[in-house]
Amino acid sequence: MDKPTRQFDKELGELKTRLLTMAEVAARMTDQAITALADRDEAIARHIPAFEQDVNRMQLEIDENVITLLATHQPVAADLRFLLAATRINSELERIGDLAVNISQNAHTLLQQPPLKPLIDIPRMAQSARDMLDKAMQALVKADALLAQTVIMMDDTVDSLRDQVTRELLTFMMSDPRTIERALALILIARHLERVADHATNIAEDVIYMCQGKDVRHPGINRQA
Amino acid sequence: MDKPTRQFDKELGELKTRLLTMAEVAARMTDQAITALADRDEAIARHIPAFEQDVNRMQLEIDENVITLLATHQPVAADLRFLLAATRINSELERIGDLAVNISQNAHTLLQQPPLKPLIDIPRMAQSARDMLDKAMQALVKADALLAQTVIMMDDTVDSLRDQVTRELLTFMMSDPRTIERALALILIARHLERVADHATNIAEDVIYMCQGKDVRHPGINRQA
Repeated sequence: MDKPTRQFDKELGELKTRLLTMAEVAARMTDQAITALADRDEAIARHIPAFEQDVNRMQLEIDENVITLLATHQPVAADLRFLLAATRINSELERIGDLAVNISQNAHTLLQQPPLKPLIDIPRMAQSARDMLDKAMQALVKADALLAQTVIMMDDTVDSLRDQVTRELLTFMMSDPRTIERALALILIARHLERVADHATNIAEDVIYMCQGKDVRHPGINRQA
Repeated sequence: MDKPTRQFDKELGELKTRLLTMAEVAARMTDQAITALADRDEAIARHIPAFEQDVNRMQLEIDENVITLLATHQPVAADLRFLLAATRINSELERIGDLAVNISQNAHTLLQQPPLKPLIDIPRMAQSARDMLDKAMQALVKADALLAQTVIMMDDTVDSLRDQVTRELLTFMMSDPRTIERALALILIARHLERVADHATNIAEDVIYMCQGKDVRHPGINRQA
């Protein structure tokens, strides 16, 4: 089996940088969707779908990058696992971008009507989901299974916030039918954020899987970009 | 570049069979979740989460299978693209299983209360999502990009059914607050089904991507299991 070359290390590093850049764009889209909602800024909400094309283009480029690296270097063990993780993480990031667009659409609906209530838990959920994504991507770059494990544990917080948001909004709906449409839009936004957190959890699971394969089979290899 | 061996063809065929089996389990879970809801059968709803372990085990086995095939045969071109598609499709199928569990949980909540209304559009959505999944898996096995394209076109039907379901249930909620909890549970089930259809669409997109790579680069190769 070939030893990875310096050139291959460099190319793996570049792939990690591409994934980080894509994660930043997806995270920024999510942040802006929540800002649009919280600050009631229609212009920001309208602008978010434009980023989707960027994310889709990055996804295609990263997949091509992975295919080229697999075909030209025919890696095994840790590098092979990393490249497979990369193609899956690529899909997760693309879907976070999709969810940001969904949130911006629900925000757009909400901004046509007066605010239902001050938003507290939804921005908190968004912050947690964002932290999870940042940590999951750090864990990927550092091949840090322990850090990835902390991401998975954070998912429970987001799930309880979603339950709390849903319960509170159900109360609104039941006491005043005029709030039903807005409350439903907020419940759906909370679900979208929960899914952003789920995607971050999936990324963390991919990182653990990647590290475990490496630890169990080739404990000496510890590649970092 | 190595020519694929007969042995490799056989192993690729076995991998396709594994993916088909996993798709069948995930589809059966979704069917049963909707049957539990439509027939108000608590026992069926309770039984669905037990399948999740099977699906998770299959996912791990398929990923190991892909890694082994990549490491031992170091394929290029169409076979490489198929294996990458396999690992992504594997994740899609696992999530369809998760969604079936979500639906069964919402069904469980609904079965504690009297039925809100006869269900028409939700079973229809389930049927469409199921058809999409079946077709997407056939398209994978036959490497049939045209069939995969029809799956993507079916997604719009599911999205309009979801909008119809949501609108109708909003009317229920607004006219009688006692229906709010049940209507919300049904809206969430419709969203879960929409996501099942989205995963089928993602599988179809992976198939097209796999076929296009093959057509553009190696139009002569047409591997079938």
